[in-house]
Amino acid sequence: MNDTFRNHLCEIIDLTDAEYELIKGYYSSFRFRKHQFVIQENQHVDYMYFVSEGLLKCSLTDALGKEHILQFACKNWWISDFQAYFKQEPSTLSVQCLSDSELIGISYQDMEALHLQFPKMEHFFRVKSNFGYIALQKRIVSLMSHSARERYDAFLNQYPDLVQKISKQLLANYLGVSRETLSRLQM
Amino acid sequence: MNDTFRNHLCEIIDLTDAEYELIKGYYSSFRFRKHQFVIQENQHVDYMYFVSEGLLKCSLTDALGKEHILQFACKNWWISDFQAYFKQEPSTLSVQCLSDSELIGISYQDMEALHLQFPKMEHFFRVKSNFGYIALQKRIVSLMSHSARERYDAFLNQYPDLVQKISKQLLANYLGVSRETLSRLQM
Repeated sequence: MNDTFRNHLCEIIDLTDAEYELIKGYYSSFRFRKHQFVIQENQHVDYMYFVSEGLLKCSLTDALGKEHILQFACKNWWISDFQAYFKQEPSTLSVQCLSDSELIGISYQDMEALHLQFPKMEHFFRVKSNFGYIALQKRIVSLMSHSARERYDAFLNQYPDLVQKISKQLLANYLGVSRETLSRLQM
Repeated sequence: MNDTFRNHLCEIIDLTDAEYELIKGYYSSFRFRKHQFVIQENQHVDYMYFVSEGLLKCSLTDALGKEHILQFACKNWWISDFQAYFKQEPSTLSVQCLSDSELIGISYQDMEALHLQFPKMEHFFRVKSNFGYIALQKRIVSLMSHSARERYDAFLNQYPDLVQKISKQLLANYLGVSRETLSRLQM
């Protein structure tokens, strides 16, 4: 567990060395290789993960076999099937590595215990969750009111580094357009 | 401020009478009449509101004059322009009453102060925000992968009471379909 995680927490809360050691004790480290699944559909979801290194996607496949990507996650992002994690239900989404990835994860029970012991971390996650909610609202507005061209331009603008790292098919599956439509947008 | 608010908080946290009195001190009561705007676009957003009574919509109007509804809110729901509230930016959404409404609101500064004084309320909002995030993820999945028919059926199933209270045009603006498409779905 390197400084990436501590720096990420310190964007929102101040931490002494002792406090960071306490928090770290609740987290476990994981390494996954490219193509490996961190979460598969219809499983119990043990952890919510912080990405120390790597690139992942969170997606679902519909009844017609079409993939819809809900989220990408690279360094400094959090990823899980949040419904399965927070409601302790079987997963409906999958999380797969698009590159070798280093993650640190906290179990649901440990997260609740950490928050009781150390309210600053609950503050951290309340703020992160508020910002996450706002980002999803913007995505809904975008899906409802923006053209494919506007959604593509917004993605490029918001995540310039990510566009270089993901395939055109994956980007199309995130934007909710066909591969052909995406190719026209990229011309 | 009636028992509705206390009962709502106690779905997630336990409160003594003294604790509830402390929390109440941070909130102010508001009454709005049908058609009144609680928030208009491009304004400072002072409050996040809990709905004690009434029905409201949160929406935006695109460049072509088309309305997109992000959220309805009835009794026991929270509503605001959350981006404007939590980031203290000018609003990009409007919140309007669809019936006479009784709201209680807390300012951003008071919410932060309340959380510092009383971590249980931060726990309450962390849990609410997590559940809100999950609900928005489901809406994104629905917009990306479900047909208009499936979205209509899911809305009916999830909010049977709401369907009786809102006009067909508003429901169409929420589902992201035309009024004509909605009429076909309702036949």
